[in-house]
Amino acid sequence: MNLKEIIREIPDYPVKGISFKDITTLLKDPSAFNEVVNQVHENFKNKGITKIVSLESRGFIVGGAAAYLLNAGFVPIRKKGKLPAETVAESYELEYGSDTIEIHKDALTEDDIVLIHDDLLATGGTALAALNLVEKMNVKKVYFSFICDLKFIENGKKEVLSNYETHTLVEY
Amino acid sequence: MNLKEIIREIPDYPVKGISFKDITTLLKDPSAFNEVVNQVHENFKNKGITKIVSLESRGFIVGGAAAYLLNAGFVPIRKKGKLPAETVAESYELEYGSDTIEIHKDALTEDDIVLIHDDLLATGGTALAALNLVEKMNVKKVYFSFICDLKFIENGKKEVLSNYETHTLVEY
Repeated sequence: MNLKEIIREIPDYPVKGISFKDITTLLKDPSAFNEVVNQVHENFKNKGITKIVSLESRGFIVGGAAAYLLNAGFVPIRKKGKLPAETVAESYELEYGSDTIEIHKDALTEDDIVLIHDDLLATGGTALAALNLVEKMNVKKVYFSFICDLKFIENGKKEVLSNYETHTLVEY
Repeated sequence: MNLKEIIREIPDYPVKGISFKDITTLLKDPSAFNEVVNQVHENFKNKGITKIVSLESRGFIVGGAAAYLLNAGFVPIRKKGKLPAETVAESYELEYGSDTIEIHKDALTEDDIVLIHDDLLATGGTALAALNLVEKMNVKKVYFSFICDLKFIENGKKEVLSNYETHTLVEY
């Protein structure tokens, strides 16, 4: 199945010159959605993953399904102020300004083998912030999973991530 | 398994007098998370569900897993301005002010049998707005699924929802 053909590209969204990768056309297609989840499962089923950590909010969809299949727990990373119990926070730079994400302090332990899943790897800024959050909990090991990787964006953040085993399904 | 015991209650959150139902303690527990998804699957596996429609962002987690198991497509309802293609919108009243949610115009067809899933049924305001969005697409049939139902909140919105087959796992 050619997943790339099923992902809709929206020209000049959200700003002129950007071709937005809209995975909703993939998600609504049962065969394509199943294929994505099955491939994540297939790739990580022998890694002993105990927790899937996913990023609000598109990352939750395939992340939730993969957690079920891998028989792992699911841990959300959310925007600042959205998680109700005690959190650890991490801020990161955006093109303009900055953003802060949080994880519950009691969400992970030193015994956890973590798969961080998000829909899209672009600059790597969010993924690196998520990694910093997860590593604050001294987990045993970290893997990454993304549906789309915008390979044409290269920078130091992505170089850091290349030290971790990463699975991606569609490259641009 | 007593799911209610696994859901954390946070007193006086987000405001004094509210006991917040924090499902993150359930999601991170592999057995509890599997149990929730299995029960949704068990309840709806013979209904011919073709699409799971879930609400941003907590609804995406179990919604994504249930879509996988039911071999259905997944359709997100998001806050205004978050979906990249052409949308239909619905506004609804909150305690203070109002909110607007959107769905992609091409997300559902007249042939779809839809399961609307969210984590929590409180006043029913969001669920009713989601129903209005889904019914604008003239789908064949609509079911509802919630993890938690705050039964002690009763009002006209919930009466409307009682016309639809609804599955809930934990009642308060």
